[in-house]
Amino acid sequence: MEEKILSIQTAQNELLEKAKKDGVKTAWDRKVDLKAPCGFGVAGVCCRICAMGPCRVSPVPGKGADRGICGATADVIVARNFARMVAGGAAAHSDHGRSIVLTLLNASKDGDFKVKDEKKLMKVAKRLGVETEGRDIYDIAHDTAKAGLEQFSKQIGTLTLPPTVPEKRAEVWNKLGVMPRNIDRDIVSIMHSTHIGCAADAESLIKMSMRAAIADGWGGSYLATEFSDIMFETPKEIDTEANLGVLQGNSVNVVLHGHEPTLSEMIILASEDPELIELAKAQGADGINLVGMCCTANEATMRHGLKLAGNFLQQELAVVTGAVEAVVVDVQCIMPALAQLSKNYHTKFITTSPKAEITGSTHIEFDEEHAYESAKKILKEAIMNFKNRDNSKVYIPDVKSKAVVGYSTESIVSALDKVTNSNIGVAGTVKPLADCIVSGVLRGAAGVVGCNNPKTPHDNGHVEIIKNLIANDVIVVATGCAAQAAAKAGLLQKEARNYAGAGLKKVCELVDIPPVLHMGSCVDISRILELVGTVANHLGVDISDLPVVGVAPEWMSEKAVSIGTYVVSSGIDTWLGVVPPVTGGPEVVDILTNRMEDMVGAKFFIETDPKKASEQMVERIEEKRKRIGI
Amino acid sequence: MEEKILSIQTAQNELLEKAKKDGVKTAWDRKVDLKAPCGFGVAGVCCRICAMGPCRVSPVPGKGADRGICGATADVIVARNFARMVAGGAAAHSDHGRSIVLTLLNASKDGDFKVKDEKKLMKVAKRLGVETEGRDIYDIAHDTAKAGLEQFSKQIGTLTLPPTVPEKRAEVWNKLGVMPRNIDRDIVSIMHSTHIGCAADAESLIKMSMRAAIADGWGGSYLATEFSDIMFETPKEIDTEANLGVLQGNSVNVVLHGHEPTLSEMIILASEDPELIELAKAQGADGINLVGMCCTANEATMRHGLKLAGNFLQQELAVVTGAVEAVVVDVQCIMPALAQLSKNYHTKFITTSPKAEITGSTHIEFDEEHAYESAKKILKEAIMNFKNRDNSKVYIPDVKSKAVVGYSTESIVSALDKVTNSNIGVAGTVKPLADCIVSGVLRGAAGVVGCNNPKTPHDNGHVEIIKNLIANDVIVVATGCAAQAAAKAGLLQKEARNYAGAGLKKVCELVDIPPVLHMGSCVDISRILELVGTVANHLGVDISDLPVVGVAPEWMSEKAVSIGTYVVSSGIDTWLGVVPPVTGGPEVVDILTNRMEDMVGAKFFIETDPKKASEQMVERIEEKRKRIGI
Repeated sequence: MEEKILSIQTAQNELLEKAKKDGVKTAWDRKVDLKAPCGFGVAGVCCRICAMGPCRVSPVPGKGADRGICGATADVIVARNFARMVAGGAAAHSDHGRSIVLTLLNASKDGDFKVKDEKKLMKVAKRLGVETEGRDIYDIAHDTAKAGLEQFSKQIGTLTLPPTVPEKRAEVWNKLGVMPRNIDRDIVSIMHSTHIGCAADAESLIKMSMRAAIADGWGGSYLATEFSDIMFETPKEIDTEANLGVLQGNSVNVVLHGHEPTLSEMIILASEDPELIELAKAQGADGINLVGMCCTANEATMRHGLKLAGNFLQQELAVVTGAVEAVVVDVQCIMPALAQLSKNYHTKFITTSPKAEITGSTHIEFDEEHAYESAKKILKEAIMNFKNRDNSKVYIPDVKSKAVVGYSTESIVSALDKVTNSNIGVAGTVKPLADCIVSGVLRGAAGVVGCNNPKTPHDNGHVEIIKNLIANDVIVVATGCAAQAAAKAGLLQKEARNYAGAGLKKVCELVDIPPVLHMGSCVDISRILELVGTVANHLGVDISDLPVVGVAPEWMSEKAVSIGTYVVSSGIDTWLGVVPPVTGGPEVVDILTNRMEDMVGAKFFIETDPKKASEQMVERIEEKRKRIGI
Repeated sequence: MEEKILSIQTAQNELLEKAKKDGVKTAWDRKVDLKAPCGFGVAGVCCRICAMGPCRVSPVPGKGADRGICGATADVIVARNFARMVAGGAAAHSDHGRSIVLTLLNASKDGDFKVKDEKKLMKVAKRLGVETEGRDIYDIAHDTAKAGLEQFSKQIGTLTLPPTVPEKRAEVWNKLGVMPRNIDRDIVSIMHSTHIGCAADAESLIKMSMRAAIADGWGGSYLATEFSDIMFETPKEIDTEANLGVLQGNSVNVVLHGHEPTLSEMIILASEDPELIELAKAQGADGINLVGMCCTANEATMRHGLKLAGNFLQQELAVVTGAVEAVVVDVQCIMPALAQLSKNYHTKFITTSPKAEITGSTHIEFDEEHAYESAKKILKEAIMNFKNRDNSKVYIPDVKSKAVVGYSTESIVSALDKVTNSNIGVAGTVKPLADCIVSGVLRGAAGVVGCNNPKTPHDNGHVEIIKNLIANDVIVVATGCAAQAAAKAGLLQKEARNYAGAGLKKVCELVDIPPVLHMGSCVDISRILELVGTVANHLGVDISDLPVVGVAPEWMSEKAVSIGTYVVSSGIDTWLGVVPPVTGGPEVVDILTNRMEDMVGAKFFIETDPKKASEQMVERIEEKRKRIGI
């Protein structure tokens, strides 16, 4: 296994060498070109919120100017910037959710988008108060979509929380004044309150951040997952492969990259169209080879076993292989660098979303009303590009790992049922999982999530932390770039139980699962919330009582800041492996890493050393166990 | 008159001298302390959107790093930052609007908030499609409020445009793809699309900015004005006084500062409560002297003739007089510096809004359900503070100007009726105004708006530009800090017509108005839109055909960026007297100051010299006249 991890590094290094030879730059080169980042920005004490400045106050109390022109202190500036990061992240996740809900609103029996998972539809309809009895499935679907949209828009009352939010948790939020009103409003609210001359109190700003973040996790992201499952099916256990070696020498390689499953689902469907396969063959290719990048990959692998080409920092290297006919993207985490880079190869860089047009791309807007035709048009563009491939420029590293993915809450419960049915007889519940935790066979659970960041060695934090945790009998659930890091490291294979401690290993054998469960894309952290909330409800406790932790070892996006904030607000201690831009605000640091524990029963830990972070996590898990007497 | 302008400067300088003597700092001191602002920030090429950076690319093409780590170019970074400024500004205005609409939703015959202007209610109800025939006034009000909230929340369709948007303008927006969906969504949409790895195309980002800004001007701000008029009455011509000399030597001086009229209306009402007047007298004061600061002042002076203590850069100097018992604030443009500053005097700095808590203030949350009692509580706090005034520290400059304010579109039309009735006989229309413009008696109209900014001499840009324009027979409408600058300079007196050109002077005499019309607060720029749209509709042309211009000589807030963007998008050329942080993005500069003219028939002009700006405006007005053949 160790070798596989090394070989991942080899592949990366090989392609970085190739990039150098090809005379193209990647994120790592640009990082070097940019030299040291601005110290004020790193500390979060740079304010560009009005045009009197920009102001940059001293990140060190007592040294230099301590207030902006308006009188904002370092803490106020840091807190406002933090809040705007949460607003950006919550907006990204939730606006993705909105698109999915709108797609269901337009779904029809004869249309390109259909209800594929009626059971999930009924579950969601019920929780959103939609009448289901004796009604046409599409009437239910459309009303459920309307009820979903209501969560973005209701101007009276508060967000409809899923039943997986323990009552005690809702009480905590109400008492603290962080219960979301609606998804959009709480984002807009942050933008208002961070305007010049509004909120200038760190705690108040962090609370607003918590409110918008909760609306993301238990609102926008939660809906994104639920409605995706309704239209594209709830994931089940499925096999796949991961790393750049999934590209094929003589196929039309198409990288699907971005986040919203709407586009990728339709392209996957279109890729099976005989007309297109014929066309590919006519161009001299063996066929069409779809692979995924970033969260589009995660969404599609969970449902179709789509091969995982790689995570965030591999998007450029995929192009550098010279073997990619098209990178097809929608939204989020798409490096604008791909426009320039792809011009150095034959690769077509195809943008499809009006939310994310990129200068220098080939823009083919994905038309949801004619989704299948639209997907075919995009694929044709890739196929017709095969002839332009320059084989002398092609290098595909021979590196890939097998992985088992598809662990929605539903498929985890279903896996547990195998044990339940034979031993206990309470099918369809999380009882076996809860029992394992209570009994101490499993010490706890950890969600390992988040991005890549060139500030830290690619995938290293993810893999090291996951290995340390499973060795300590902490079961790991993973999403996003973290899940892909695990996949490439072979940690999503069932055989990886051999790296687990005795307890976890036993559970993995019994339930027949890997020690690390791929739960989906970054919006699918809602699946983790759902699972954790279900376990808490089963045990009659609050989420903050459970021995569970979260960690984003290599985070870089605002979405991660929103995620971290809603995970902590949900009562789960969360580690950040990259220092957030808050260090210039001592009060903000104190709130995030200390006072939040009094507010919500959990807090942030900032630790850049994966080994130390893992140790701290295991320690906190054991502390929690003691505290609740298990 | 010239003397009065000089004396304004004298008063400022006197108080700045006093501040120095008192050992307290103001915005100007902090600006000096902060030294030169960061050049990257000034040029807009600093990106803090993800945690791979911060990145700062070279603002000069060909020199230094030209891309962020993700590959974002200077133009992409500048455009994203610009879009987020618009999002912040649109959020501030619109969230203010939402609060006003929600207040009407809870208004009742016996409550603290009532329908005071039934005529306006009927007008708004009608345009929002609410049935009015034979219904109870409060039923209509509540349904109108619901229809108003719908503009923030509808997930299907587009914003309900007021009928004052000419059809041709709506066509321009539809064709360009900038027709707003709903107010909140288009703000959230910007936050999503500016997230790492989304939109990376300057033009696309500027269009999103236009969409959100249009939703502000013709949506959030428009509703804010309409619903304020319904509850607090549509302004009519009324007298007032302006400048810090409105503070009184032996009264309980209370400065109302911020933006939303809900709080100030209730405090004005409470200040007439015999119990409180008695209490003030019992403390040895002559009575309660309410004065206004910033846009709260503008809202309240338009309806009650509340005295105008000053605009944005005078908020600290009011405290420095030592004669202010309390500064009572709600949201926006409140310097957090007031918390520290007020502690150097006896002044109570009272924050009232959960949207804008400020560390170090006395926070008394304004409870709208018990609004009158809440207002009394706040006023009592001020009154009981009178005894703590240290007379040896008091200095009130003996400077104030008379002014006539209250020019809503309705009151302008009503003023015009005086002429109409005697001459033409078409009462209740803008015909006389349109006729004056078409005939050339008035060469055109200018909206002078926006903030103060220590980057430019306080009030100088406002006053110089206004004087130059009226001398050239351009009638001026003003809002916000600009309107207050005009008031302090005596330009809102009817006698100021003597500074006007022959044509404008004649019109002012005939209609009995000043040459500069105070149209309200910064959200009330919607009144300017309403007026301009009404004139365009009357003439059967698009707004971009009219010889009208906009200018923000001393802007500093994100609201001003949103305003500028919706004014240009509405077809009105707009001058900025402070350079926005876009100079590092050549394509963005080209779009804003050039290509926007092809898109919407108007563009931005950036000119820091007030004299040159005025000349350019007059020139463009004459060009427009020629182009449409008048």
